[in-house]
Amino acid sequence: MAISMSSASLPIFRTMLGNLSHFLDKGLAHAQARKFDPQVLVNYRLAPDMLPFNRQIQIACDAAKNGVARLSGVEAPKFEDNETTFEELRARIARTVAWLETVPAARLDGSEDKDITFPVGRDATRTMKGEAYLKHWALPNFFFHVTTAYAILRHNGVELGKSDYLIGAQ
Amino acid sequence: MAISMSSASLPIFRTMLGNLSHFLDKGLAHAQARKFDPQVLVNYRLAPDMLPFNRQIQIACDAAKNGVARLSGVEAPKFEDNETTFEELRARIARTVAWLETVPAARLDGSEDKDITFPVGRDATRTMKGEAYLKHWALPNFFFHVTTAYAILRHNGVELGKSDYLIGAQ
Repeated sequence: MAISMSSASLPIFRTMLGNLSHFLDKGLAHAQARKFDPQVLVNYRLAPDMLPFNRQIQIACDAAKNGVARLSGVEAPKFEDNETTFEELRARIARTVAWLETVPAARLDGSEDKDITFPVGRDATRTMKGEAYLKHWALPNFFFHVTTAYAILRHNGVELGKSDYLIGAQ
Repeated sequence: MAISMSSASLPIFRTMLGNLSHFLDKGLAHAQARKFDPQVLVNYRLAPDMLPFNRQIQIACDAAKNGVARLSGVEAPKFEDNETTFEELRARIARTVAWLETVPAARLDGSEDKDITFPVGRDATRTMKGEAYLKHWALPNFFFHVTTAYAILRHNGVELGKSDYLIGAQ
C-alpha cells in the first residue's frame, strides 16, 4: 500500500507521543525512587537559554497537533500551556493523542500540494507545500522536542535507552 | 504528487544531514573563537553512559545509510568509524550524502511491504515491513542522533537555534 499524507503523519505522531509518555513514567519513577522533587526535572534545561522540560513536552504535542490541523484543515483544540507537573504533562500528551485519533485520514490525504502557512518566530510566517511542510518542518520539529525531552531526563540520570525511545515501534 | 518510499526518505535524510554539517561548522567556529580545544566537543557526552558527539554523528549517518540500503537493496559503503575531528566528521557526512545521491529512487519505491531484517543490540534481529521500518525505526533513530548532536553543542554554549536545526527546509 502506498504511503499517504495521513499514513506519513498520524501513526508517527501517535507512536512517538506514546513513547514520550513512557519517558515521563520513567522520569517520575526515578525522582520518586531517588526521593528528589520531580519538579527539578520538570523545570530542567540543558542550557540557560534552552526551553525547560515541560515546554519541550508542550511543543512536541503542538508540533503534532498543529501540523495535522494545518494539513487537514480540522480545527485543533487550544491548550493553555499551563502544565507544571508530570501528571499534567502526561494528560497533555493523552489529550493530543485523543484529538489526533479523531482526525479522519481522508482530511489529510491529498494535502501534498496544499499551501501551508505557519508562524515562524513572533512576527513572520512561512508558506510551504503540504508534503514539504510535513517532511522538512513538522516532523523534524516534532522529533527535536521528543528527543530533547529524552536528553534532559538522560542527562539527569533517568535510566532510559534506545529501546525506550523506540518502545512503540511495531 | 503522492508520497513514495523514496520521497519519504531520501530528501529528509539529505536535508537533515546538511543541517547536521551546519551544526559542525558552528561548533568548530565556537571552539576556535573561544580558543578551546575542539576535541572537547568531539568527545563530549550528555551523560557518562551516553555516546559522545562523534558517535552521534557517525550513527546519524549510519541510520540514513543503512536505512536506505536495507529498503533499496543497494549496497552501502562501509565506514570505519574512525572519525575523531570536526573535519573528519564533516567528511563522513559528505560521503553519506554523496552515496545517498547515487541511490535510484526506483530502488526504494515499492518497498512498503518488503520485509526488512536488521540488528537490534548485539545478538538479536528484528523484522518489520518497509514502511513501518522507515516511519517507526529508521527516521526516529536518525532524528534522535541529529538532535542529540545539536543538544551536546547547545549544552556547551554553541549558538544554535531552531532556525539552524531547520536551516535546509525548503
